[in-house]
Amino acid sequence: MYKLENLIKLSLNETNPDLVLKGGNIVNVFTNEIIKSDVAIDNGIIVGIGEYHGKREIDVANKYIVPGFIDSHLHIESTMLTPKEFCKAVLPRGTTTVIADPHEISNICGLDGINYMLEESENLPMDIFYMLPSCVPCTEFESNGAILKAKDLQSLINKDMILGLGEMMNYPGVISKNNEVLSKLKLAIDNNKIIDGHGPHIKDKELNAYVISGVTTEHECSTIEEMIDRLRLGMYILIREGSAAKNLNDLIKAVNKDNISRCLLCSDDRHPEEILNKGHINHSIKLAISKGIEVIDAIKMATINPAICYKLKNKGAIAPGYDADLLIIDNFNNFYIEKVYKKGILVAKYNKPLFNVVYKNSYEENFVNTVNISNIRKENLQIKITSEKVNIIRVLPHSLETKKIIKRVKTKNNKFTFDKDEDILKLAVIERHGKNNNIGLALVENFKLRNGAIASTIAHDSHNLIVIGDNDEDIICAVNEVKRCRGGIAISSNKKILESLPLEIAGLMSSKDIEFVNLKFERMLDIAYNYLNVNKDIDPFMTLSFMALPVIGDIKLTDKGLFDVNKFKFIDINNK
Amino acid sequence: MYKLENLIKLSLNETNPDLVLKGGNIVNVFTNEIIKSDVAIDNGIIVGIGEYHGKREIDVANKYIVPGFIDSHLHIESTMLTPKEFCKAVLPRGTTTVIADPHEISNICGLDGINYMLEESENLPMDIFYMLPSCVPCTEFESNGAILKAKDLQSLINKDMILGLGEMMNYPGVISKNNEVLSKLKLAIDNNKIIDGHGPHIKDKELNAYVISGVTTEHECSTIEEMIDRLRLGMYILIREGSAAKNLNDLIKAVNKDNISRCLLCSDDRHPEEILNKGHINHSIKLAISKGIEVIDAIKMATINPAICYKLKNKGAIAPGYDADLLIIDNFNNFYIEKVYKKGILVAKYNKPLFNVVYKNSYEENFVNTVNISNIRKENLQIKITSEKVNIIRVLPHSLETKKIIKRVKTKNNKFTFDKDEDILKLAVIERHGKNNNIGLALVENFKLRNGAIASTIAHDSHNLIVIGDNDEDIICAVNEVKRCRGGIAISSNKKILESLPLEIAGLMSSKDIEFVNLKFERMLDIAYNYLNVNKDIDPFMTLSFMALPVIGDIKLTDKGLFDVNKFKFIDINNK
Repeated sequence: MYKLENLIKLSLNETNPDLVLKGGNIVNVFTNEIIKSDVAIDNGIIVGIGEYHGKREIDVANKYIVPGFIDSHLHIESTMLTPKEFCKAVLPRGTTTVIADPHEISNICGLDGINYMLEESENLPMDIFYMLPSCVPCTEFESNGAILKAKDLQSLINKDMILGLGEMMNYPGVISKNNEVLSKLKLAIDNNKIIDGHGPHIKDKELNAYVISGVTTEHECSTIEEMIDRLRLGMYILIREGSAAKNLNDLIKAVNKDNISRCLLCSDDRHPEEILNKGHINHSIKLAISKGIEVIDAIKMATINPAICYKLKNKGAIAPGYDADLLIIDNFNNFYIEKVYKKGILVAKYNKPLFNVVYKNSYEENFVNTVNISNIRKENLQIKITSEKVNIIRVLPHSLETKKIIKRVKTKNNKFTFDKDEDILKLAVIERHGKNNNIGLALVENFKLRNGAIASTIAHDSHNLIVIGDNDEDIICAVNEVKRCRGGIAISSNKKILESLPLEIAGLMSSKDIEFVNLKFERMLDIAYNYLNVNKDIDPFMTLSFMALPVIGDIKLTDKGLFDVNKFKFIDINNK
Repeated sequence: MYKLENLIKLSLNETNPDLVLKGGNIVNVFTNEIIKSDVAIDNGIIVGIGEYHGKREIDVANKYIVPGFIDSHLHIESTMLTPKEFCKAVLPRGTTTVIADPHEISNICGLDGINYMLEESENLPMDIFYMLPSCVPCTEFESNGAILKAKDLQSLINKDMILGLGEMMNYPGVISKNNEVLSKLKLAIDNNKIIDGHGPHIKDKELNAYVISGVTTEHECSTIEEMIDRLRLGMYILIREGSAAKNLNDLIKAVNKDNISRCLLCSDDRHPEEILNKGHINHSIKLAISKGIEVIDAIKMATINPAICYKLKNKGAIAPGYDADLLIIDNFNNFYIEKVYKKGILVAKYNKPLFNVVYKNSYEENFVNTVNISNIRKENLQIKITSEKVNIIRVLPHSLETKKIIKRVKTKNNKFTFDKDEDILKLAVIERHGKNNNIGLALVENFKLRNGAIASTIAHDSHNLIVIGDNDEDIICAVNEVKRCRGGIAISSNKKILESLPLEIAGLMSSKDIEFVNLKFERMLDIAYNYLNVNKDIDPFMTLSFMALPVIGDIKLTDKGLFDVNKFKFIDINNK
């Protein structure tokens, strides 16, 4: 630690601090005031607020100084960027600290995946904290690449970069007092760590049980009722504004002066395109303000509130002893972040990062060779129909949830056959960890793709290869392209690849920069919407990627089959 | 720890909890709501809010259920009661947790004193946490009974009952980077503990330095300006309502919805008489409500806010996993606390404790034989006057502070002599730890005592024997009675003892119960006001006890002489 004597000398201005930001309008999150004053910074720490002389002085008169933003919960893998590229992308947008859950890569590479993320996050001008993935695999109803038990997490729980146990999606496991689930909870409790929740729709006694098990936060609320139920029981609510799930509009209506200290902001899963075009946590703040939240209250949800919730002692405020993670903002109307200081160093200016990161020369085999599937032939994709009506997954607009519908489909020789006049697509989840060659098959309504297929190795949370299409030839074509890329996303039409984005790191992340990823991604989005006519009320890639996640209702598909989330068991596609 | 499986079963009501409070109006400090619901309790922990069946069920319909109150900062010794008797006195008034600083007894008995308090606080139906006294002795400008250095505190800092370092009164030591002071601060910082402040009037760069040194709380604010200055720099403000210092009326005006989460309530120094007649923290809450604070906001200042500030994880709210420290209140108009549950057990009802405490049969010599002074004779009390005017301590109404005034006094043979027409009393501080026989002498205005003397071994913080009177004979008489009692308070008039209260434990606490102490104390108060005509705008005993404390301005007296707090040095009584 920096010597206390020196800090006191600096606060007294007996010695001159490294840097003084002169005369800015400081946002005070303790009192909800704007205070015109200097900020004195030395060795990355704020040493004084008042009138100070420094070795360097920078005039910030008429500008606002705001604490750096904290994203309370996200999966970096969902940005398809490595931690380094993610940092370069969101730091200029004001995010100086994130609390990430590496559970995507863990499902593929296990502990090696977590260690890779920790290592990639070191020496960056951003504080990347991690929660240890609690559900790898997410459920027993799917095949994944690794199993993490409580004893596996033990070696990591007390690392400085680890804040606790990641989202406990296996809430049925909590309620049923599953031994392994309880061991993970105990690991966090015994080490005085935070436990993140993920328990949509739980209520009454089950919610009480979830809370008493040590779960402290929730980011899966989609209704005010769920949010209030959880706030009342003492949970912190992380209001999410991701790419597939956007809850801020709905939830912000319930935020008031009495409960705001328990409300935080998070992005959870956010694509490069939205980060580049709309922003990151800065976008959530602007959105909250546009919905009537006072400016400083909106800022608190991404600064002091998460700092208190996650015990980040010296973050989230502009006061002596706090880290000098500071944003210079022109005004609160456009909320343009002109400069970002991380621990007192100017790291971004006018939306551009001012630092370089050191890249790895090569990645180890286990990170870049993770798509292990046999050749897929048409025979593998046939769906046997033996009932009059079948269970179909209906995609819902702007949601990670789906709805089970039951209807008649066209068949030929007792097998499903595509009907150009009906919006029914085929969905396949192909085990890709080289374990068992499983293929799960289902039918999907309201995705509305025509004349092609989309395949991806991003398929929460086991990240098997997921593919959707309206003909088997294009499905196979897209699958083969993804295989060739060693993971990623591909779009086919008329047996040709229209575009593909290689995500060679675990099939989740590109080793390229955000501009490359975004260019590819925007082109694919354009193709999906305008060439394949995908429903414009959904994000095709994000929606696809959540269709294999068996913990968000109502009906999902894993490599092991069609899954009814409410009943928490497999169901037959045939409705008998 | 209680097994997680069992807790989950209880929350699910798969097993019946010990106790269910049925149908009460629960005060929710997270959402500022009143929610009609059952509270299920097992093994001292709240296991569920909702509809529950229990082994025992108690109907609390139409009653309010409120989390037990937390006193954020106090000195139990100031109640003149042992921890056990203190607990019996304040628990029925709703205080279920206190954060105490045993620095009075430490100044007399050192580490033995702290250990005595810790031991006396065990197995009580109250959580008594302690802060380690940071300033023993308070300053180098007085003689006390023990010196506690950082290395002495090391053995205690990580005990469960210890939350951190007690009020850092030696703020000049912080500012001047005194080695020993910094070592104590570092001890707390390195062990991730809280540091309480005590720094009235510090501002600007010195306040920044105080905060950067790790000081997190302040309970010495007497003006809104001081309070806002500290809130802005991230300190928590403990709004004090003690017997001598009453700050709530002034400070509550600055509390609002934006800063209330940083505001707490404390009693600091509170006499039995006020506890019995007005209350403890419940009184502060009622006072805050009467000043316009919303009921639940007032409750938050004594529940969830201190719990967050002092990291008392499972306290301050009614939610699953929290300790079942609960108050049953009839209504918010009279705020009468009908019942108090501590960890699920009914411990007080209709203002009476329902538990017994086990007393010690005898106290060790070092706790009950602490008044070691020589015989005091008139010669020891003479004040030499060599200047035209002299420096006099003026007592201020309802305040721990004093004001230095300069005026002419009557003399005889160059010595001060009492003048029946002038309100000038003699004050003596007599070293009583058997160290050096020091006697400090001064003159006092506005105390207004006539025809007698009051002596006491409560004299913050070194607790030498302090005595005030308008004639030397009564001064000596009162001193001798205190000596005879082995510590305590005595009032003399016309060379006779009118009343005395033995405080045989370290000269600070009675081994008797609160009724005895209060009876004695009320009688003495009556004598002081109505027989000796003491100024009714002051509390004679509390005011007297703070007149030797050289860290609260403007002018004080120690056994070493008259002390100018602002200049932080001794001054001569003669103003030259």
